[in-house]
Amino acid sequence: MRAPRWSAEEFATRLRNPHDRVALGRAVTLAESTLAPDRALAADIVAALGPPPRPAVRVGLTGVPGVGKSTLIEALGRHLLDSVESRRIAVLAVDPSSTRTGGSILGDKTRMATLSTHPRAFVRPSPAGGALGGVAHRTREVAQLCEAVGFDVLLIETVGVGQSEIAVRGLTDCFLLLLLAGAGDELQGIKKGIMEMADVLAVTKTDGANAPRARRAAREAANALHLLRPPEGGWLPPVLTCSATDGTGIAELWAKVEQFLAHQQANGQFQLQRQQQQLTALRELVRQELEARFYARPEVAAAVAELETAVSQGALSAGGAAARLLGLRGVN
Amino acid sequence: MRAPRWSAEEFATRLRNPHDRVALGRAVTLAESTLAPDRALAADIVAALGPPPRPAVRVGLTGVPGVGKSTLIEALGRHLLDSVESRRIAVLAVDPSSTRTGGSILGDKTRMATLSTHPRAFVRPSPAGGALGGVAHRTREVAQLCEAVGFDVLLIETVGVGQSEIAVRGLTDCFLLLLLAGAGDELQGIKKGIMEMADVLAVTKTDGANAPRARRAAREAANALHLLRPPEGGWLPPVLTCSATDGTGIAELWAKVEQFLAHQQANGQFQLQRQQQQLTALRELVRQELEARFYARPEVAAAVAELETAVSQGALSAGGAAARLLGLRGVN
Repeated sequence: MRAPRWSAEEFATRLRNPHDRVALGRAVTLAESTLAPDRALAADIVAALGPPPRPAVRVGLTGVPGVGKSTLIEALGRHLLDSVESRRIAVLAVDPSSTRTGGSILGDKTRMATLSTHPRAFVRPSPAGGALGGVAHRTREVAQLCEAVGFDVLLIETVGVGQSEIAVRGLTDCFLLLLLAGAGDELQGIKKGIMEMADVLAVTKTDGANAPRARRAAREAANALHLLRPPEGGWLPPVLTCSATDGTGIAELWAKVEQFLAHQQANGQFQLQRQQQQLTALRELVRQELEARFYARPEVAAAVAELETAVSQGALSAGGAAARLLGLRGVN
Repeated sequence: MRAPRWSAEEFATRLRNPHDRVALGRAVTLAESTLAPDRALAADIVAALGPPPRPAVRVGLTGVPGVGKSTLIEALGRHLLDSVESRRIAVLAVDPSSTRTGGSILGDKTRMATLSTHPRAFVRPSPAGGALGGVAHRTREVAQLCEAVGFDVLLIETVGVGQSEIAVRGLTDCFLLLLLAGAGDELQGIKKGIMEMADVLAVTKTDGANAPRARRAAREAANALHLLRPPEGGWLPPVLTCSATDGTGIAELWAKVEQFLAHQQANGQFQLQRQQQQLTALRELVRQELEARFYARPEVAAAVAELETAVSQGALSAGGAAARLLGLRGVN
């Protein structure tokens, strides 16, 4: 049986009731659809809802596998729900590999038992399939919908492999990097360039016998950051410690996120960054579509493999190959 | 009086004579020209020259203003020329700001007195004008020409502000980051993400009263790198110390570069990285041209400002604006 196709206005009316989870689920499905008419309807729903009742904040979270992202999000989410009675939170994810891995992140909602069933929380796995740019864009549209619906905090998880951190950094207000202390006190598996993107850092699993090791790793990371990265706009990213198991440092972690957001609001960066993110997303979407159309042209598709081979063998310069591709008849 | 227009074959014959600086200068001017027919002739010259007599290596150099890039390149260049009698070196630069600053890097050849006049060296300032992508691409074509002509080592300097480091990283085999110790032993003005790109690092001005401070800064940087960045493919970027003034550490610096290049050759990364760089450049050039053509269309140019305003004010989503731009009549 096919679901009834509500109008944007009908959706908006239903979505103003925070308990209508069916409407929310359907609207999100439209926003993350790969079909343009679905996404157009989702955009109309956002327009029909009007400006969000309260401005929301978007927090990105990343970290290597094993760092405990799900349990940390569960603990952080509970703290957020318990500390402000009216607060609503949405947990989203960006994972371009989700079709391959069967949804490695957020797929198993049982890892977020409280949030999955809480009336003021909404947990949504990553849109399945597609290249990273497409998946991240669809999550961006879902985030916009969640804001319009009235969620106050959006936690956006990234799978922590490949380029998804950069994508999530590009659609959040604050980027939180979770770190894992190794047996030798060193930090585990941090990828090139990710440390540089973080606004707040936290070493997880600071509990029991692991606590002293985690604290040492945090101190060393803070020293290294201080040396390597002069503060930008007066904010030196702090390195905290926390435990999702016993709750240590969870409230302090969120307080630090709020402190960063207040800092960004005060110096005007918050709004400016959001505007730049939207404009960058527009340029990116246009670029992706232009490239997709170009490489789909039969005369280009027929020539590209041979030219790429010549270029990678050094027989033809990149400039020469580009000129040939762009000069193909029918392309201009 | 207009210069005679030689054919690619005439150029190739002349360029096989390493003393024909006139032909070299003219060929490089063609390669870095903004005019497509000039660059096409340059590509034909490269083809006419055939594969380089010896494989060349491309080394990128960057560092904050004041780190002493020019004097270091002069000292390193002299070492390269003195240590191998037949070696020829070319010094190129990427600086998209060169029209504004009047050529802040390599513009003043007197800062490289030996290299500027040495028969086995060729010093070329950055191509003037244009966006970074264009400037970097033209330097890439110049580099290819210099290799075909028979230069053995290409040193490619970057101005060290903005995104030019990433561009130079994308056209070199080894990326060298020069660091400056501050009065308090800390490192000066390292930008976000640059440390992560370096294959070899060196603290400059390790001489006189500054030497102990520079050595401490190098040790601390090495510790921080070790903590923050697990070795990739078995190479942990070393942090050396050197002085262009008294020559300390210059030979050791080059030895480390050669050690890195040998490491890359041994594990196959050298060739693989070059191929990937060329393919990336091809995609980039096509992308730049597609975007330039698209935004130059009158109907797009007329609509884009209004749509961007709507997006940055949050009145329209990035996806909605992209769909409108791409759906304009005449665009498809």
